[in-house]
Amino acid sequence: MNVAILLFDGFETLDVFGPVEIFGRIKDRFRINFYSLRGDMIKNEHGISIATQKLEEITDGVDIFLIPGGPGTRKELDNVQLIETIKKISDISKYVLTVCTGSALLAKTGLLNGLKATSNKKAFDWVTKSNDAVEWIREARWTVDEKYYTSSGVSAGMDMSFGFLCDLFGVDFARKIAFEMEYQWQENKNTDHFYQQ
Amino acid sequence: MNVAILLFDGFETLDVFGPVEIFGRIKDRFRINFYSLRGDMIKNEHGISIATQKLEEITDGVDIFLIPGGPGTRKELDNVQLIETIKKISDISKYVLTVCTGSALLAKTGLLNGLKATSNKKAFDWVTKSNDAVEWIREARWTVDEKYYTSSGVSAGMDMSFGFLCDLFGVDFARKIAFEMEYQWQENKNTDHFYQQ
Repeated sequence: MNVAILLFDGFETLDVFGPVEIFGRIKDRFRINFYSLRGDMIKNEHGISIATQKLEEITDGVDIFLIPGGPGTRKELDNVQLIETIKKISDISKYVLTVCTGSALLAKTGLLNGLKATSNKKAFDWVTKSNDAVEWIREARWTVDEKYYTSSGVSAGMDMSFGFLCDLFGVDFARKIAFEMEYQWQENKNTDHFYQQ
Repeated sequence: MNVAILLFDGFETLDVFGPVEIFGRIKDRFRINFYSLRGDMIKNEHGISIATQKLEEITDGVDIFLIPGGPGTRKELDNVQLIETIKKISDISKYVLTVCTGSALLAKTGLLNGLKATSNKKAFDWVTKSNDAVEWIREARWTVDEKYYTSSGVSAGMDMSFGFLCDLFGVDFARKIAFEMEYQWQENKNTDHFYQQ
């Protein structure tokens, strides 16, 4: 399966590289590529500078389109060209996964209207303002609705990725990969330790 | 504090970007830079291509020198120039942190002789062969001895990084950062769920 990771300046490090570690180590099933609007070097506040390809090169969709969050989403939410490109690629791709405030970018396309979704607990009120036609689930660690997976903040992207592996290949397979990474996977998607009423 | 991250082809994604997420988000205390022997683009099997500076530019040491693991360590363990450079920089730096099989690279320098260290549970026998003068602690999640922090596999690098923050700035500070990342920090360094007798 082809995994396309969306990058933009100011992406959150672990939103991207947590899922990349998980899918990347399953070399016989997944192949990862990084994309951005201009296909240039993308930077973030953690000193990272990473090479990307152009999003427009994705003409037939991908198996998995991953949209991270991060401080950059505040600016990108008003980037009409990016939101339109996200909508186009999401529409023709098999699965779309978002981490943290990445769900605001996807919500802005309208594709989540009437569907369940979640996001970072700290930024929740900002995210839900992006589109009130989404059924926002504050207490979830991650959500699954149709082909859309959305996770809570930063580290939750890893729990969601294991949940995705579980849905596709079974719980034993997901647990095996978590074990190899020495990662304590939170298997229950419906409650989040970091949700406070 | 300056954080220098060592990269080499075939580094493990989360070994690097877990700790980078943790230190990187504390912008008023840490600044991160990526280094490699030749200061060029470094790649790994997860499709990542990342810009680095030359290790030789570190002439006065750094506050934190982080050495990741990954499949590339198998080759780099025989890279005399890299091991000598790791020794030189570790010697003059304030703290040295290793993740996963990164502890084999540090052990090879001789700087861990007589000190406690740990590593990835799956690769433990390979790692300990790199130097039997090290006091290898198989059951630890991470170890601290003098200025050297070594962690178990992949995800354990994050638990160790929070442990490092705890030692420097107190447990409340470490817990606050983990909470912001929505990460369930394993606070006990002495036992590892992934250790099997």
